[in-house]
Amino acid sequence: MVTLAIDTSTKVCTVALVKGDEVIASYEANIGLTHSEALMVQIDQLFTESKTDFDQISKIAVSIGPGSFTGLRIGLATAEAMAYSWKCELCGVNTLKALAYNIQEENILLAPVLDAQKGNYYLALYTWQQGKLIEKQAVEVVSKEELFTKIASYGMKTILLGECDKLVDSLKAEISLASEDVRMPKATSVAQAANAGSTVSGKEVFGITPYYIRKSEAEELWEKKQQALQSEQ
Amino acid sequence: MVTLAIDTSTKVCTVALVKGDEVIASYEANIGLTHSEALMVQIDQLFTESKTDFDQISKIAVSIGPGSFTGLRIGLATAEAMAYSWKCELCGVNTLKALAYNIQEENILLAPVLDAQKGNYYLALYTWQQGKLIEKQAVEVVSKEELFTKIASYGMKTILLGECDKLVDSLKAEISLASEDVRMPKATSVAQAANAGSTVSGKEVFGITPYYIRKSEAEELWEKKQQALQSEQ
Repeated sequence: MVTLAIDTSTKVCTVALVKGDEVIASYEANIGLTHSEALMVQIDQLFTESKTDFDQISKIAVSIGPGSFTGLRIGLATAEAMAYSWKCELCGVNTLKALAYNIQEENILLAPVLDAQKGNYYLALYTWQQGKLIEKQAVEVVSKEELFTKIASYGMKTILLGECDKLVDSLKAEISLASEDVRMPKATSVAQAANAGSTVSGKEVFGITPYYIRKSEAEELWEKKQQALQSEQ
Repeated sequence: MVTLAIDTSTKVCTVALVKGDEVIASYEANIGLTHSEALMVQIDQLFTESKTDFDQISKIAVSIGPGSFTGLRIGLATAEAMAYSWKCELCGVNTLKALAYNIQEENILLAPVLDAQKGNYYLALYTWQQGKLIEKQAVEVVSKEELFTKIASYGMKTILLGECDKLVDSLKAEISLASEDVRMPKATSVAQAANAGSTVSGKEVFGITPYYIRKSEAEELWEKKQQALQSEQ
């Protein structure tokens, strides 16, 4: 039985078909197309080129954020509609937790980050112990300074992953950047996290909402506008 | 063979199952839920309560805008994913054209409008002649003043539909408001427009993009922010 995995939480659009530990096919694109243009095309490529039939899919795993407002909504709507259409299981995976599956090394503190805007970051901290992912710190929104203070408090060799381009200039001695091939979300990691049970919701086929600690600016703007419109009427 | 129709272009979330001229089931909700929460639940209600099987669906018809930025993206992502999953036809229908199917009366100028923000409106003009919808004017973005000037130039009894709450105070003698039950988008009309061939795309299962004349403010803000981020890096 095959898992179809989707991650549209950042500018990278990544999809994969995974069977147990075996990656059947995966695509990552960062070619400036919007997810609304790229996602279904990439999913079709996966199925066509790997000659996988739809009825082999038993689970859809989707990254639920934190991340890009519109990207997440397109990814979730697509995943929910496909899981519903095929009557298969739907698993939502936290984007930061999935990122930690990109680097499965012990004795290292993994620090996946995503841009939370206004100089803030979504941060969670993980380590691998005997093949299991241990959450040292759940997702928080932190400033750049808080981010480095939190990491330093563990006194461990640390690898930063995710949207960390703006942190490069501030790296300390014990902190390094993940190599480019494992820095950004990978749908194969989303599948692995889902199959390991690290999921937010597994039973309901729909009703998963994107994970936000703080609303995106787009959402805030939209709500303000709606309130303004209502008060005008 | 049954058409599943979806319209999420406004605050109303509306879905329907239509077989030829017969409406099997339809739901409209305007209960403050976001489309990301409501759409799949409503689609499931349609199938469950009408006891329709997935394999009866031969076509998915979806409203492609103009309309709400996030709503359209959720509706299109859902429609594309379901059409792909079921290997059935996907038809995109212009929201204003679909609105004209709400009132199938001859000798009346139909003026569906949608809010284009900043005091502007999306406007198209239609009449029904011998059971066929005639487009008198394609979709344009107009100011409130231009809207009434354009309508007046036809010298016909006119009915306003769509997001026209803010136009109520300016109604002229020959212009009336559609009654509430047919004022906002109806998925049954989307299905009828698709089945009449009034569609933007029918052959491709994916790649339909939302219809905008002008970008939504959310999109403009997002692009500005991306440009600012890139220039910072």
